[in-house]
Amino acid sequence: MQIDGPNYVVVFISQRAEGDNGYGTMAERMVESVEKFDGYLGAESVRDASGFGITVSYWQGLDDISRWKADAEHQAAQRLGREKWYEHFRLTVAKVEKDMYWKKS
Amino acid sequence: MQIDGPNYVVVFISQRAEGDNGYGTMAERMVESVEKFDGYLGAESVRDASGFGITVSYWQGLDDISRWKADAEHQAAQRLGREKWYEHFRLTVAKVEKDMYWKKS
Repeated sequence: MQIDGPNYVVVFISQRAEGDNGYGTMAERMVESVEKFDGYLGAESVRDASGFGITVSYWQGLDDISRWKADAEHQAAQRLGREKWYEHFRLTVAKVEKDMYWKKS
Repeated sequence: MQIDGPNYVVVFISQRAEGDNGYGTMAERMVESVEKFDGYLGAESVRDASGFGITVSYWQGLDDISRWKADAEHQAAQRLGREKWYEHFRLTVAKVEKDMYWKKS
């Protein structure tokens, strides 16, 4: 996906716990919900068969990221993530310094 | 993986082309080689069955990243990446603003 001019990236690296426990449904809702947030530019996500995954989302500003973090439904998802869905995760917010996209011509 | 105090992240998002074409061997060499670089703190990597993958590496400084980028063998790998291994990729360098790790207790 080509996303132009992100100022920030959020990197979420996670190991899923065994079983779905409502994760799939909530993950779909979160993907739909975040699209409506100002300053959200897009995301890339991959998870392997072992349940280890990385999601990178692209944002205009830190304030936009804070508003998404504070969203009520997202807060509920964060709580369930700790209670049921993840064994461990890492969350990194970083300011873009260089960003390039290459595609085979 | 718990990596303490990274100042920068490099996010490499890529779609592999069909066929190995020497990719596996080179990927192993690059993993071994980067470990020897000053300022390299570690990495997380995941690729799904379709060949879509994300690698996040953690660094102390921009200079460290530049030295790795300029490494001769890595340069050869970058060239082959464009010629043979990738359909498209995105490379983002970003300065860490917040970084947290959580593990189920």
